[in-house]
Amino acid sequence: MPEESDVTAEIRVELKPGVFDAEADSVERSLGQLGIAGVRAVGTARLFRLTFHGVAPEEARRRAELAVDRLLANPVIHRVSISLAGG
Amino acid sequence: MPEESDVTAEIRVELKPGVFDAEADSVERSLGQLGIAGVRAVGTARLFRLTFHGVAPEEARRRAELAVDRLLANPVIHRVSISLAGG
Repeated sequence: MPEESDVTAEIRVELKPGVFDAEADSVERSLGQLGIAGVRAVGTARLFRLTFHGVAPEEARRRAELAVDRLLANPVIHRVSISLAGG
Repeated sequence: MPEESDVTAEIRVELKPGVFDAEADSVERSLGQLGIAGVRAVGTARLFRLTFHGVAPEEARRRAELAVDRLLANPVIHRVSISLAGG
């Protein structure tokens, strides 16, 4: 359960445009095989939700950015957005 | 590029509470090893973005639900939310 002083950073990691998304490609083919029509494009992304306790929002954002740089994304192929909730 | 008559269904698939999230566990350990402190919980989710062309929003939602049922999620372990944009 989130507590009052929790801050959650939601980190969205997706492939940059132009980087081949094999999973999206596979989903798109499978949708066609299943007869689910009208799909013009498929994209995928990963979400990571980090819940900080006893950390101010600006510091939580800084730590989330550090987690992205050190662990969660590769700047060569990924683009990343971070949104904060709670506080 | 999205066109005027495109509708995008954003499908978020995450593990149900109580189902062990190995990736989240691994991220949480790694954050500790990197000295990124104050993290009380980590969660992960996958996002699939299906862009429909020439399909009305209510029909796009129906097809997105079908894609979830047939391909993208396992109701035993996953919970799913779908949001629509455009139209």
